[in-house]
Amino acid sequence: MNPKLPYILLVGAAVIIFILSCMLLSRGRQSPSCDSQPHVVEKMGSTSQSLVFADLTPEELAQVVRYLQGNLGVPLVDASRAKPSDNCIASVDLQVPAKAEVLRFLDGGGARPPREALAVLYFGNQPEPNVTEYVVGPLPTPAYHRDVTVQKYGGKVPYHRRPMLGSENEQVGAFLEKVAFAAAPTFLKEVFEYDGTNVAFQIAAPHGFRSGDRKSWFVLFQNVSGFFVHPVGLEVLVDHSSLDISRWAVSKVFYNGQYYRDMIQLESAYVQGRISVEKVKKAPRDGDFSSMKPRAPSAALFPLQYEPQGPRYSVRDNRVLFQAWSFAFGMSVHRGLRLFDIRHKGERVAYEISVQEALSVYGSNCPGGMSTRYMDGSFGIGHYTSPLVRGVDCPYLATYRDVHYLAHSQVSRVSKSALCIFEQNLGSPLRRHYSNLQSLFYGGLVNSALVVRSIATVGNHNYVWDFIFYQNGAIEGKVQATGYASSSFLHGDGLRYGNRVWEHTLGTIRTHSINYKVDLDVGGVKNSLVAHDMAFEMVRAPWSPEQQIERPRLTKKVLDTEDQAAFRLQSKMPRYIYFAANSKNKWGHQRGYRIQITSFAGDHVPEASSMERAISWARYQLAVTRRKEEEPTSTSIYNQNDPWTPTVAFADFINNETITNEVGWGPRGGGQLSTVGIALAPAPARGFTCPMVKLGLDGAPGSPPAQDLVAWISVGFLHVPHAEDVPNTVTVGNGVGFFLRPYNYFSEDPSVNSPDSVYFSSDQDAGVCGANPLACLPPTAACTPHLPPFRYGGFLNLSLALPAGGL
Amino acid sequence: MNPKLPYILLVGAAVIIFILSCMLLSRGRQSPSCDSQPHVVEKMGSTSQSLVFADLTPEELAQVVRYLQGNLGVPLVDASRAKPSDNCIASVDLQVPAKAEVLRFLDGGGARPPREALAVLYFGNQPEPNVTEYVVGPLPTPAYHRDVTVQKYGGKVPYHRRPMLGSENEQVGAFLEKVAFAAAPTFLKEVFEYDGTNVAFQIAAPHGFRSGDRKSWFVLFQNVSGFFVHPVGLEVLVDHSSLDISRWAVSKVFYNGQYYRDMIQLESAYVQGRISVEKVKKAPRDGDFSSMKPRAPSAALFPLQYEPQGPRYSVRDNRVLFQAWSFAFGMSVHRGLRLFDIRHKGERVAYEISVQEALSVYGSNCPGGMSTRYMDGSFGIGHYTSPLVRGVDCPYLATYRDVHYLAHSQVSRVSKSALCIFEQNLGSPLRRHYSNLQSLFYGGLVNSALVVRSIATVGNHNYVWDFIFYQNGAIEGKVQATGYASSSFLHGDGLRYGNRVWEHTLGTIRTHSINYKVDLDVGGVKNSLVAHDMAFEMVRAPWSPEQQIERPRLTKKVLDTEDQAAFRLQSKMPRYIYFAANSKNKWGHQRGYRIQITSFAGDHVPEASSMERAISWARYQLAVTRRKEEEPTSTSIYNQNDPWTPTVAFADFINNETITNEVGWGPRGGGQLSTVGIALAPAPARGFTCPMVKLGLDGAPGSPPAQDLVAWISVGFLHVPHAEDVPNTVTVGNGVGFFLRPYNYFSEDPSVNSPDSVYFSSDQDAGVCGANPLACLPPTAACTPHLPPFRYGGFLNLSLALPAGGL
Repeated sequence: MNPKLPYILLVGAAVIIFILSCMLLSRGRQSPSCDSQPHVVEKMGSTSQSLVFADLTPEELAQVVRYLQGNLGVPLVDASRAKPSDNCIASVDLQVPAKAEVLRFLDGGGARPPREALAVLYFGNQPEPNVTEYVVGPLPTPAYHRDVTVQKYGGKVPYHRRPMLGSENEQVGAFLEKVAFAAAPTFLKEVFEYDGTNVAFQIAAPHGFRSGDRKSWFVLFQNVSGFFVHPVGLEVLVDHSSLDISRWAVSKVFYNGQYYRDMIQLESAYVQGRISVEKVKKAPRDGDFSSMKPRAPSAALFPLQYEPQGPRYSVRDNRVLFQAWSFAFGMSVHRGLRLFDIRHKGERVAYEISVQEALSVYGSNCPGGMSTRYMDGSFGIGHYTSPLVRGVDCPYLATYRDVHYLAHSQVSRVSKSALCIFEQNLGSPLRRHYSNLQSLFYGGLVNSALVVRSIATVGNHNYVWDFIFYQNGAIEGKVQATGYASSSFLHGDGLRYGNRVWEHTLGTIRTHSINYKVDLDVGGVKNSLVAHDMAFEMVRAPWSPEQQIERPRLTKKVLDTEDQAAFRLQSKMPRYIYFAANSKNKWGHQRGYRIQITSFAGDHVPEASSMERAISWARYQLAVTRRKEEEPTSTSIYNQNDPWTPTVAFADFINNETITNEVGWGPRGGGQLSTVGIALAPAPARGFTCPMVKLGLDGAPGSPPAQDLVAWISVGFLHVPHAEDVPNTVTVGNGVGFFLRPYNYFSEDPSVNSPDSVYFSSDQDAGVCGANPLACLPPTAACTPHLPPFRYGGFLNLSLALPAGGL
Repeated sequence: MNPKLPYILLVGAAVIIFILSCMLLSRGRQSPSCDSQPHVVEKMGSTSQSLVFADLTPEELAQVVRYLQGNLGVPLVDASRAKPSDNCIASVDLQVPAKAEVLRFLDGGGARPPREALAVLYFGNQPEPNVTEYVVGPLPTPAYHRDVTVQKYGGKVPYHRRPMLGSENEQVGAFLEKVAFAAAPTFLKEVFEYDGTNVAFQIAAPHGFRSGDRKSWFVLFQNVSGFFVHPVGLEVLVDHSSLDISRWAVSKVFYNGQYYRDMIQLESAYVQGRISVEKVKKAPRDGDFSSMKPRAPSAALFPLQYEPQGPRYSVRDNRVLFQAWSFAFGMSVHRGLRLFDIRHKGERVAYEISVQEALSVYGSNCPGGMSTRYMDGSFGIGHYTSPLVRGVDCPYLATYRDVHYLAHSQVSRVSKSALCIFEQNLGSPLRRHYSNLQSLFYGGLVNSALVVRSIATVGNHNYVWDFIFYQNGAIEGKVQATGYASSSFLHGDGLRYGNRVWEHTLGTIRTHSINYKVDLDVGGVKNSLVAHDMAFEMVRAPWSPEQQIERPRLTKKVLDTEDQAAFRLQSKMPRYIYFAANSKNKWGHQRGYRIQITSFAGDHVPEASSMERAISWARYQLAVTRRKEEEPTSTSIYNQNDPWTPTVAFADFINNETITNEVGWGPRGGGQLSTVGIALAPAPARGFTCPMVKLGLDGAPGSPPAQDLVAWISVGFLHVPHAEDVPNTVTVGNGVGFFLRPYNYFSEDPSVNSPDSVYFSSDQDAGVCGANPLACLPPTAACTPHLPPFRYGGFLNLSLALPAGGL
């Protein structure tokens, strides 16, 4: 052996090691992991400010419960097992401080408002049973509680108005199973093969016809996955108004088109063969046609979004930053998702944007269906916020946050990952122009926006709530509906009320109406409401006076009163309607934010209806009112169970108060201006001169007076379930909402400052990274997305609830 | 030295090499490149079928030109340099074969229809100048041509109706520069520092007030990037009606609010100091405020979409496959993007879905602005289709296709990457349900859809045209507007017509109206049109007759005639309106596709206007007519230049023909049904029985008679430009369109067969890949997207056009 061989081999090995190392390093460069650090610079202090809107923490919720248990002087039973005749804590939520107080803190260097909770107490074990609302504070160590019921509602809240607790649902369920059903054993056994576990219920609401009623139709379904579309034909009316459960009773029974006094009568009619029985084929546990189990093997993966250089937004506590935007988020246990202190470049655009209510009015030829007008706020849109699934409910790489709430129990619960925040590249341009006139250039930027989302699953229905922040200063509020369509048992003239969607299933017609509160503060809290639209004026062509031109012109109108600013559902609304600031942009126009609504809503209920006032917000596609601390929401959680004496009637908010100051300013009613003036005058042969434009020619000689205003926006659509609603309703086409768009708020489009801008001209080689940022994209984006393992906490620590109301 | 050292070192080196190799290999495994092969199985033969709709190839276009040059017996000048007094080929496009012929070929095994072209010839050099349309065929080797003008339009097309060629634009430009401007040298020099290159023009249309007029206002701008928002105050009315260019003349001049007989008068008034001059600050070449150049350095990259396992769609020739969908695409040189033979699971749902026209009506106190009513089809929506930029106009990883067209020239041009096709994960669920009632489960699937897009840049404005195919069988047509807002010089009462958006710039009010043709063929070509909606009926509660319920019920109405099926813009349209098939789904309902429109359109022009009939399609949000081969489009390219004698008047399509067969069937006018029957009858105490439902209870005793129908859909919005339209209009909120949604077309939602379905229950560990496909996502999707280098062919081989009309 050549003695030099080991050395030669060593040199060879060194070379190989070197090459391999280089390969490793270079391959490392070729496809590194994508960055996962957010690229956002936080300002000091701001997060702490946002905490004024933050949901109560589990610790705070526990403190409030402890305080109430020790300081109300009455025994409190855990709501999760309370009887109607007990006292209990129904819910605890953040008491949002008064706006004036918050603004003093945020803007005026004032003190931080004390942190307080709002507790809803059911006092069933009192001489005069009632619902009482307490403000409890200061957190974290409560020292006081204040009964705010009378102040908020002008009187006590009668006990019968209380929303149903989960425990009451369970109690009615037990009553049905143990008392009611026991009276019709043969019928149930032979017709439904009833075994005590194979039926599920859905409860209709409201519960009667008159204040004080608490009689509910329970619709029976096969207890299978997606039971909502498996009606069996039996519906039972239970009077559960008594606080003494032993006095609850069946008031009426419905089976397959016939009504019976009670279960005993049903049983006897059945035994005597006097019933037309329509047996429903037993569905397997997975529901068969209602199952959401995949029917095709999974194949190539759908497209995914990734962030090559990490998130471009940040979420700290309840505060989100994205480009020029910042805002705070929270979840009201009753009303659902809400945003506060929404700012663009540090300047507040809106104080609050929040979901208020989701209403659904059903038709059917079955009693449960025909009496259903669900108001989801009463059930709790936040309470029923749903754990979100990565990759389906939100993009896989979204940021997720848990929601903690206290409702129907004395301990708080968590809905894991119930809120998601993500940037979405919408795949289309925000702006673009391709020029081959005069010069060859291309400019544009992609429409990439920030989305905040929660999904509420109230019974059968799922609402996807989005708030979207665009780079041009626009905000979108959007709701999409999905989930199961609830249904009636198909019989008789059922097809007058919907479509048949399965053998025995009638997909029943229903409306969906959603209400939002939008407290815009455009350039300060004081705003006025202005309407712009187009009208044609007939003019003679100035250069050819014998010819007529139908010329579009801008109509302008300041809306002076709440009545003028309340637009009925079917009315024609001005196409530009905006909150105008006291200040002007560089071009002399009042700075404004425009409200643009997308809705397919029809009538909510006839106004003659005895319950209409309880949902009178749905009369209006848009109503702008003076903001009042005592009008915080457009409805009340007590409206569902006593809509005949509504605790809050939105229609009362609109009482023709002026929404400008009392002082007049400049010409009004521009919309009614007739087409006079220079337009109709034939042009003189030699031309004529008009006075030159001066800044501030909006028809306003001075600053417009204004008020703190709130826009209440209602959107909705009609849903006639059809075969394609099985197994579920799709979101496609079932989305409605609104845009808040800057209208002369800025002096040019703020997206000019976006780092996403792209421009190149024919002088440049668009393929070179320095000349065109898109040319840098391949090397920048060639990285491996960091995808965390899939986890789901949606079933953790969850006691299975009995079927509660749904929609 | 230990003699064993080399060996020890060698062993060490071997170990290091082994480790490095393992690292290399394992890293390779950790982040492989994502697949880039499409995962689609093509069926044989289908692509070849789609070719019947394919755009003409450059070779075919050249053949047609050669044939025409050799066979018309008159000299043809190249349109790119033709004078009005020449003969030339204005455009050549596919002559889409008649539907009956195509269907015989596609469905009936008939012969492939001959491939033909439609050529538009301008005969300026004839005793009676005219426009003639020839069908030329068969391709690839033309042997015949057929004059179809009279057959199509009921008469010859007078020459004055011809759309302007690029060459005519250039000729008018030259006339302005060389003849008109020469008459006012002092004014131009001193007021505009005119140097022969620093002004750009935009032409208004239509060109006068009466048939035969060809007098156009040219609005002057500073010739800088984004010149459309740089008006200088001068507008010139040129009479270019004569075929002899030397006889063209200035008819009127407008400067800063005053009219002048001609440039000579303007010059003399200026020299005599009788003009109020408003000098505009000279803008830099990049336009300053109108520049699209980035103003902020590019920062972290926006989110991107990638396809971990490659595209899930395929594009072969002009045919696209995506899941259950297939369709053919094409680009009409005049009308723009069009789809044909749209099928779901092989069954045709629509024969044609196509853009028809984009109209924009302007208001202003300047003559050019106030006379502008642009009909983009006349300019050519396909002709001005824009090269698309990866990453901005469409997702970076979309599939791009070139568009070839022949217009205004005798050689074909290419618009590189002018069509894009991609799957877009919309980031939200298509369907989902979270269950914590009765059973704990989650089911859903992501909303991932296929998009086909083109963007037309006609002058200043850019329309983003999308057709979107969803997994639930829905199709969406959507148009978003962006680009520059054209403008007027701000003077006098300008603010009656818009907002000031810069120092001297008035963003002028304008409407946008877009028309689509939707030739649905639902379960065959014969369809009827049915309207469903909701009405309240007052009924006594069957179980409590003293109580009243306002009950929603389904109203049904078959629309018998074209008049009934024509819904005026401001009219209330039934919320469910659908094309119903002759066949039924499993549940006895007529299979249908519903049309749902999103639009913010207002009046197009008053109907008294002398040009209204030319754009009478815009009267209707929806009009359904019998399909006729002789009514292929809702307008004509000749309407722009002679709207006073419209070559095609859509209103004439609606002549109250029946759109069902003459034979009646079943009850009609369900919408007017009064609420009689069981509903009003109080329920008997013991209940009552209704007749059981039988299949096919849609009110139709037999099959409904039907016709081949077409839906013409108009959408639009009002645009009042505001400060944020500088530099460009954003797409956010400026999108309108329609959905075509299955309505009992299927017997259940077709997305149940999607491979994207996700389901897991509390029994399963959702984090395990076998139990839940999302848990397989991290390993599957951890790959490096293959991003091709950025290339742009949008400026290649492009002769810079003079400013043509825009909007």
